[in-house]
Amino acid sequence: MKEIYLDNSATTQTDPQVAALIGEIMVEEYGNPSSLHQKGLDAQLRLEQAQKQVARLMGAPDPQSVVFTSGGTESNNLAIFGGVSARQRRGRRIITTAFEHSSVLGPFAHLEEQGFEAVYIQPDRQGRIDPAAVLEAVNDDTIFVSVMMVNNEVGTIQPIAQLAQAAKEKNPQLLFHCDAVQAFGKLPIQMGKTQVDLMSVSGHKIHAPKGVGALYVKKGVRINPILYGGSQQRGIRPGTENLPLACGMGLAAQLAEEKLPAAYEAITAVKAHLVKRIAGMEGVTINSPADSLPYILNLSAVGYRSEVMLHFLESRGIYVSSASACTKNAKSHVLAAMGLAPKVIDGALRVSFQRSTSVEEVDAFADALSLGMEKLARVR
Amino acid sequence: MKEIYLDNSATTQTDPQVAALIGEIMVEEYGNPSSLHQKGLDAQLRLEQAQKQVARLMGAPDPQSVVFTSGGTESNNLAIFGGVSARQRRGRRIITTAFEHSSVLGPFAHLEEQGFEAVYIQPDRQGRIDPAAVLEAVNDDTIFVSVMMVNNEVGTIQPIAQLAQAAKEKNPQLLFHCDAVQAFGKLPIQMGKTQVDLMSVSGHKIHAPKGVGALYVKKGVRINPILYGGSQQRGIRPGTENLPLACGMGLAAQLAEEKLPAAYEAITAVKAHLVKRIAGMEGVTINSPADSLPYILNLSAVGYRSEVMLHFLESRGIYVSSASACTKNAKSHVLAAMGLAPKVIDGALRVSFQRSTSVEEVDAFADALSLGMEKLARVR
Repeated sequence: MKEIYLDNSATTQTDPQVAALIGEIMVEEYGNPSSLHQKGLDAQLRLEQAQKQVARLMGAPDPQSVVFTSGGTESNNLAIFGGVSARQRRGRRIITTAFEHSSVLGPFAHLEEQGFEAVYIQPDRQGRIDPAAVLEAVNDDTIFVSVMMVNNEVGTIQPIAQLAQAAKEKNPQLLFHCDAVQAFGKLPIQMGKTQVDLMSVSGHKIHAPKGVGALYVKKGVRINPILYGGSQQRGIRPGTENLPLACGMGLAAQLAEEKLPAAYEAITAVKAHLVKRIAGMEGVTINSPADSLPYILNLSAVGYRSEVMLHFLESRGIYVSSASACTKNAKSHVLAAMGLAPKVIDGALRVSFQRSTSVEEVDAFADALSLGMEKLARVR
Repeated sequence: MKEIYLDNSATTQTDPQVAALIGEIMVEEYGNPSSLHQKGLDAQLRLEQAQKQVARLMGAPDPQSVVFTSGGTESNNLAIFGGVSARQRRGRRIITTAFEHSSVLGPFAHLEEQGFEAVYIQPDRQGRIDPAAVLEAVNDDTIFVSVMMVNNEVGTIQPIAQLAQAAKEKNPQLLFHCDAVQAFGKLPIQMGKTQVDLMSVSGHKIHAPKGVGALYVKKGVRINPILYGGSQQRGIRPGTENLPLACGMGLAAQLAEEKLPAAYEAITAVKAHLVKRIAGMEGVTINSPADSLPYILNLSAVGYRSEVMLHFLESRGIYVSSASACTKNAKSHVLAAMGLAPKVIDGALRVSFQRSTSVEEVDAFADALSLGMEKLARVR
């Protein structure tokens, strides 16, 4: 049975070229970038090359803006805890949206326990954050705003550049953070041209492996570390640098950059094809807005529990997810925040693509979904 | 020129077998352990296998005690911040030694800033921590004690099991943490038979790659997370698990376990040979105690600055370090804490072995050291 993997927003296959480079560095160029000898220097040069590659895909003019982390979760935690602690003498209000990833909502909840005043902006039914609502929430006491670029379950794209500009015009002392994990490598990003201070990205969503991510820290912006130890990465992120995976992420970023425009076009067509197929199916609703990221489609086969349908699809070699992988066994807080009905949430499936997903693959998904709705018992 | 790498306490070459497994998982078994489908389940099973392999080398009876992290620095930070915050209502005193790794001293300094009372036990000139001094420091207000198993610069081995038992007899409410990064895979460890609550280890010191480590959390011991997000690893360490590197560390642990007794014997002989060679060199002092870990030898070519000698050795293809790689360009706080004279510290070199280091390699080092002392200008 041919395997059709449509769960690329959970994690992607590592590009074989990327895996080969990582293996080579592990075995051949295993120096510690902090060592004073040549092996250390070689490692340091490799690390700088990786910073450049990642910076380019971020649209960051200064490669030194790139701080490598262990992944998106650490990047978000470092941005939020590190940013808030650096600004905590200037105010207590922190702002985000109600449907961020758990690695943003988690730190916010923890800061609330510590006495910060957290404001959660509600998305509308399309998963859109109203810039006016963000602006209204920004006051003199606000030190931190975090809004994701692309929602990981429905794919809604927020106008981050405008949001950052408006928020900082109202209060220039705040730090603006953006979780761009699902946008990185898929949308063209020009961070250097925005007022965004901090941006989180992850390796394993762009065909680099799990275990590596990065935080963009705009030149001149100071945040505190969350880990303490050596002076690696200018003290913002101590610990021996994960050289092999950082280089793998660098190469993956370079490949993504080269392929971005053509892939965007191709996947836009693939998604349009799938949407057309689904539009004809009775009982299926689409939860992603029409202008969402081409790589994500959230839909509900109303009356069919997500997990049951997911396993039916799996029996046909097709892998999708119910909500985000990070909220295993829990109902989607994203769809709930968007105000969808419980029966729509119960039947939600996220189908997520990568740059080489084909029309044939989404056709197979549509066929299997249709068959599933025929064969499976409907819950009323 | 043949390369002789004697800086294995900074980082080791990844075992080609380990690198091959990692590459295979990245490309073939790239599921997210939290995904509900078969690819996710396969990944979860792989992760559990890695936990078992690492637990065995720790001598931990319960594989669930193993929490994967991004490396030794994160393990130490998680143990200290997570442990202290879980016990902070019971007291304010925290105890460690003056010559721990920077990823222990860093968190301690940060906790001091937050109002905790930190006590730093001084090692003697051999790098030994007097158990009586630790016991004396433990009072009713003590919540956390952290002592490293093997010092990373001189190799002194501390009697961790006895220290933990004595400390917890005096105050059963404290948590005992051990940074075992340099001991793991080199000394037989039986954590399950001790009263140690938390133990940090790292992958890249045992021929797994940089970017992965683990924290042993004794069954029943509760610590708080330092990162917030998904519910991965029972919430102690959220974020998509770094499956490829965790599996690589698992295999490296298994290989280390199989080879440990024979390697210990072989490296003991290699070190004894080098010590004998050096004992005959005028102006060279040995800073490691006679009963230190066989894998580390710290010595000083008094009157020859470490960096100068290091680069001379490098010109002959021999890689060693001045102090720890994590304190690049800084004087060794370890040798200073041991009370060594400044001129001894200025000339210190750390030579560190791995299980297949040969007598020929250390002979080449001894020859080159001797030649260096002949050729280089002596500082007075």
